[in-house]
Amino acid sequence: MKKASSSLSELGLGEDISRAFFRPIQQVAPPSPSKRRTKISVVGAGNVGMAIAQTILTQDLADVLALVDAKPDMLRGEMLDLQHAAAFLPRTKILASTDYAVTAGSDLCIITAGARQIAGESRLALLQRNLAIFRDIVVPLARNSPDALLLVVSNPVDVLTYITWKLSGFPPNRVIGSGTNLDSSRFRFLLADHLEVNAQDVQAYMVGEHGDSSVALWSSISVGGVPVLSSLDKHQIAYEEEVLERIRKAVVESAYEVIRLKGYTSWAIGYSVSNLARSLLRDQHRIHPVSLFAKGFYGIPDDREVFLSLPARLGRGGVLSVANVHLTEEESIRLRRSADTLWEMQQQLGI
Amino acid sequence: MKKASSSLSELGLGEDISRAFFRPIQQVAPPSPSKRRTKISVVGAGNVGMAIAQTILTQDLADVLALVDAKPDMLRGEMLDLQHAAAFLPRTKILASTDYAVTAGSDLCIITAGARQIAGESRLALLQRNLAIFRDIVVPLARNSPDALLLVVSNPVDVLTYITWKLSGFPPNRVIGSGTNLDSSRFRFLLADHLEVNAQDVQAYMVGEHGDSSVALWSSISVGGVPVLSSLDKHQIAYEEEVLERIRKAVVESAYEVIRLKGYTSWAIGYSVSNLARSLLRDQHRIHPVSLFAKGFYGIPDDREVFLSLPARLGRGGVLSVANVHLTEEESIRLRRSADTLWEMQQQLGI
Amino acid sequence: MKKASSSLSELGLGEDISRAFFRPIQQVAPPSPSKRRTKISVVGAGNVGMAIAQTILTQDLADVLALVDAKPDMLRGEMLDLQHAAAFLPRTKILASTDYAVTAGSDLCIITAGARQIAGESRLALLQRNLAIFRDIVVPLARNSPDALLLVVSNPVDVLTYITWKLSGFPPNRVIGSGTNLDSSRFRFLLADHLEVNAQDVQAYMVGEHGDSSVALWSSISVGGVPVLSSLDKHQIAYEEEVLERIRKAVVESAYEVIRLKGYTSWAIGYSVSNLARSLLRDQHRIHPVSLFAKGFYGIPDDREVFLSLPARLGRGGVLSVANVHLTEEESIRLRRSADTLWEMQQQLGI
Amino acid sequence: MKKASSSLSELGLGEDISRAFFRPIQQVAPPSPSKRRTKISVVGAGNVGMAIAQTILTQDLADVLALVDAKPDMLRGEMLDLQHAAAFLPRTKILASTDYAVTAGSDLCIITAGARQIAGESRLALLQRNLAIFRDIVVPLARNSPDALLLVVSNPVDVLTYITWKLSGFPPNRVIGSGTNLDSSRFRFLLADHLEVNAQDVQAYMVGEHGDSSVALWSSISVGGVPVLSSLDKHQIAYEEEVLERIRKAVVESAYEVIRLKGYTSWAIGYSVSNLARSLLRDQHRIHPVSLFAKGFYGIPDDREVFLSLPARLGRGGVLSVANVHLTEEESIRLRRSADTLWEMQQQLGI
Repeated sequence: MKKASSSLSELGLGEDISRAFFRPIQQVAPPSPSKRRTKISVVGAGNVGMAIAQTILTQDLADVLALVDAKPDMLRGEMLDLQHAAAFLPRTKILASTDYAVTAGSDLCIITAGARQIAGESRLALLQRNLAIFRDIVVPLARNSPDALLLVVSNPVDVLTYITWKLSGFPPNRVIGSGTNLDSSRFRFLLADHLEVNAQDVQAYMVGEHGDSSVALWSSISVGGVPVLSSLDKHQIAYEEEVLERIRKAVVESAYEVIRLKGYTSWAIGYSVSNLARSLLRDQHRIHPVSLFAKGFYGIPDDREVFLSLPARLGRGGVLSVANVHLTEEESIRLRRSADTLWEMQQQLGI
Repeated sequence: MKKASSSLSELGLGEDISRAFFRPIQQVAPPSPSKRRTKISVVGAGNVGMAIAQTILTQDLADVLALVDAKPDMLRGEMLDLQHAAAFLPRTKILASTDYAVTAGSDLCIITAGARQIAGESRLALLQRNLAIFRDIVVPLARNSPDALLLVVSNPVDVLTYITWKLSGFPPNRVIGSGTNLDSSRFRFLLADHLEVNAQDVQAYMVGEHGDSSVALWSSISVGGVPVLSSLDKHQIAYEEEVLERIRKAVVESAYEVIRLKGYTSWAIGYSVSNLARSLLRDQHRIHPVSLFAKGFYGIPDDREVFLSLPARLGRGGVLSVANVHLTEEESIRLRRSADTLWEMQQQLGI
Repeated sequence: MKKASSSLSELGLGEDISRAFFRPIQQVAPPSPSKRRTKISVVGAGNVGMAIAQTILTQDLADVLALVDAKPDMLRGEMLDLQHAAAFLPRTKILASTDYAVTAGSDLCIITAGARQIAGESRLALLQRNLAIFRDIVVPLARNSPDALLLVVSNPVDVLTYITWKLSGFPPNRVIGSGTNLDSSRFRFLLADHLEVNAQDVQAYMVGEHGDSSVALWSSISVGGVPVLSSLDKHQIAYEEEVLERIRKAVVESAYEVIRLKGYTSWAIGYSVSNLARSLLRDQHRIHPVSLFAKGFYGIPDDREVFLSLPARLGRGGVLSVANVHLTEEESIRLRRSADTLWEMQQQLGI
Repeated sequence: MKKASSSLSELGLGEDISRAFFRPIQQVAPPSPSKRRTKISVVGAGNVGMAIAQTILTQDLADVLALVDAKPDMLRGEMLDLQHAAAFLPRTKILASTDYAVTAGSDLCIITAGARQIAGESRLALLQRNLAIFRDIVVPLARNSPDALLLVVSNPVDVLTYITWKLSGFPPNRVIGSGTNLDSSRFRFLLADHLEVNAQDVQAYMVGEHGDSSVALWSSISVGGVPVLSSLDKHQIAYEEEVLERIRKAVVESAYEVIRLKGYTSWAIGYSVSNLARSLLRDQHRIHPVSLFAKGFYGIPDDREVFLSLPARLGRGGVLSVANVHLTEEESIRLRRSADTLWEMQQQLGI
């Protein structure tokens, strides 16, 4: 298959134009090394990775965007497709390669690659395959960008974030999983849509393990900063635990529903991760529920080295601190149970 | 297949929260009908349609976004996926339906649907299938939004824009094809990338028929408003027609290359069309090369009722005027030849 | 004083360029009347009015921006200064006149004009002067834009919003005072700065009368949607009413401090009002504490026709509903006391 | 005068909330020094400096914004006024001090301070006073931020940029004057307004000395990248040198007109400088006419060490290269004459 010429030099023109049109300024010193640009790398150029990359581009979060994938043709196609929009966007350098050297000096590396479950495969077998894949991803990423923040999007996100932490050797505040950030957004949309209020004015956290065992924090639901519970109390409306559980299930189910209907999820995870990237790289100190090194928080014992989603303040240093949300006894128990489950799985993995 | 509950009312909670939390203000008069919101409809929820819809959403161009497609499941999946990002975006009402009633009162309708060529099918046979499809699209669109602007993205864009004009009965200034707007962006990227200058500072038009017969306007190439040709002249660099033709072919080829590599194009066309939507709906009076009713311009005879791309000033009224770019004799001939070809094809179609 | 030529036509060139460069498209129908653009008018081109106008421009909220002031020279200077930035901004039509005809068809009118207190003048005498001034403002505004939303920024904002409502004859949901929206922002900044968290993640309402008698809602203080009170409770930290009162006074004082230091406030009120304009015109359904028609809410008796700040959901229709925040007995009493004070003052005014 | 408490710690509350609400994550390593934030310093908190600072803030260009001025009260008032808007803006650290230590580690320093002409004062006497002032500004700026870009806005901008270059000892590509960037914008607005086209689609350069002797480049006027001259030629419209000169004077006069009408210029220069800041810090490679080290360009002799405005490509390294625009013989002569005038003045200054 013939490679199309995408550079003018190969066409024999460019140099003349360039020489004729611009003249270098004299005595120009090179920019000092400290004057670095913001670089984001995305590993995995599938639907999720590309939705993330495109949203980051539209929202103008990076000066350099590097894409890595094992499939060179598809990868080059995606790179060209983004580059062709240059006239409609702020100037961003877009790179793509199967070689991790392209990620060198990243400020943030986002991992969306991973193995999918094969019919009949056990959860442990799948994880072992993913461990092998992540070894090939995380080790070169960490070597090429020793100061980067690592953000894991691949599923099962909590274990894979743990694996990424172990393989990278990075301090835990610099290793984050997208966790329940998107689940919480779905929770907020459901509530906002019903109340006909802006979802940005609704707060509601899903925490714990991403997926079927996530914990919805009833006490965290507020509108415009005002706890909904307190309004309900005042009007003698009984709290119905059963109803809350139905909402939580609707949130969990809504991800499966999108997959069932369109085959995968992409847009919402793209916006969600781009939003995390902004809070991290622009040092926004915003609070997001993300998968973080949870041992010692909320009664999780110190021998449980697990990553679980908790509301955290994010900034240029990664996870800056963990918010101290009130949990009911039931919620605490479920959180610790998830910690146990994850820990046992990690033990079996032998990492 | 069980439909997931995506509304809180069905879960038996919502009403109480809503009643408890918000109290309507007294003596509220409904907003007057003139206080309408900006509504954009996108027909076709494939890769192109969704890239357009998502970019419009990110760039905050609409208050209401309606999606139409013939496949209800996929369509609902795409709608939910966008809605789940509500917490990360300005509030936009996102609707989706197989029924065109959902598009009622649109300010702009973007058509991305259409038939793909079947192996062995003649160009005319394909067009006839598309004519039938467009009858089912354009007639209900025009009926539901009699004041809308219509923007055609489907290919072959020039003939389909003509068909849309005829079927809608709209004045020609309100019917536009995305035409060579993206080709021109690719042209600008190639030049900007080589000159290491921002693509927004490079101007370069592709005009005429979208696709293989497009015409690159050598005299239109400028950087920061300064014609590159004039710089070249001053440095005694000969104009090489042959080189220009190679660049034009590289631009045309680059679209095919993306399709060959990733299977389709999506991101660049998404940004390109979102950019047109902005110029139109926010009355920006920017100049874009788009497919417009070209008879009488640049020597195209008055009996040639064809749509071809020419640089035009776009605003709330659609095409406001056509820019008067200098064409070489050769360029004029090629433009008129395209007009003839299109006209003959339209005659065969019998519309 | 010689008026500089700011139009090319007067210089004898333009017409030729225009005729030569653009050619109108044929068969162009005028845009239908329903295709209106978003128009914002700002009355008063002083420091506050101009900070609002400039922020609205930067944040791209209007297609047409009209300025009105009684001083024609200063007004024209401000208009030209904004217009000269056209190359750096989206295209917005900027108009300015001493005649309210320039505001015709506005979607939102923002009033920043008003009399300042003269040494020795009583509060009532000042209000009577302002009543006369507002008669000259509100009556022509309402006549020129019968469907507009009216947003009052001038102080004392609560009484002047009441006056605007009476003079306009508009339904109360379409008459709003900026009220304690900015006070609340200052409250949120003080808390966010101390907690080193993003102020957008801190919620804290000041309600009631704007100024010295405003009421800080202790129960409304939350970070990332989590009530700070509940965290304190859990850690056995006593609630100290006295401390809260000190914070409230610091917030009230901070406005006076800015005035003492730089002579006036401008930037923060500019951002605050631009933010309200966005929620209103883009139908954002966000919750803001603004001065609204408060009778019947929170125990304010039905014979008290007053405007006071309460957290409200804002959209294209103005005030959509009032949030039902829990008040302590003490807070309720203070709110009703403010209602009484305002009502008595309005009685004295005889409107 | 009592200083208001603007920090919660002084009020005796904050610490408890902070301790209760956030818990630090364990094993947190400090962000590495290379992970620096973008810092902009503005020297001079008058109308121009504050319009620049506020526009930079609204356009989200800096993570840290430092203000320096000799008047501590006014400076603190401006800082508080900006900080109070925190809830409406992305999180930016805003600092202010009379001490240049506050600017340490800036990426970009913008100088708006300077002496105003006293009645009867000669141009040279004014310059000598400014030289003394700039010594107190540039030396500490350069010491505190040895890698910064320096952007001079104060007038007379060309000589003061030269002075800044000499005093800083920086390479010339890192010292820039705002020069004719705003004049060019006014030129573009006048043309765009007349042609009813977006000013962003109009290119037109003023070059040379900022002020009365600036040179308008007739050949540089283009709309949508298409030279207006070529359209005129084709329609047999004679080039009228006299008309061009009238336009240039209208542009120069329009600045004086704003000053006469409102007392100073602020908004347009604010947008203009914020636009330059973006091109520089986000490495946009856009082309702007700015005052740069011009010796050797366009026939300016090598012994003329002067700063004059020429269209240049700007990026993270400052001035990257100078565009090669065609000048008429007359234009070249005027440019060289300006170079001579500036050089002689600099000789008299003895720097």
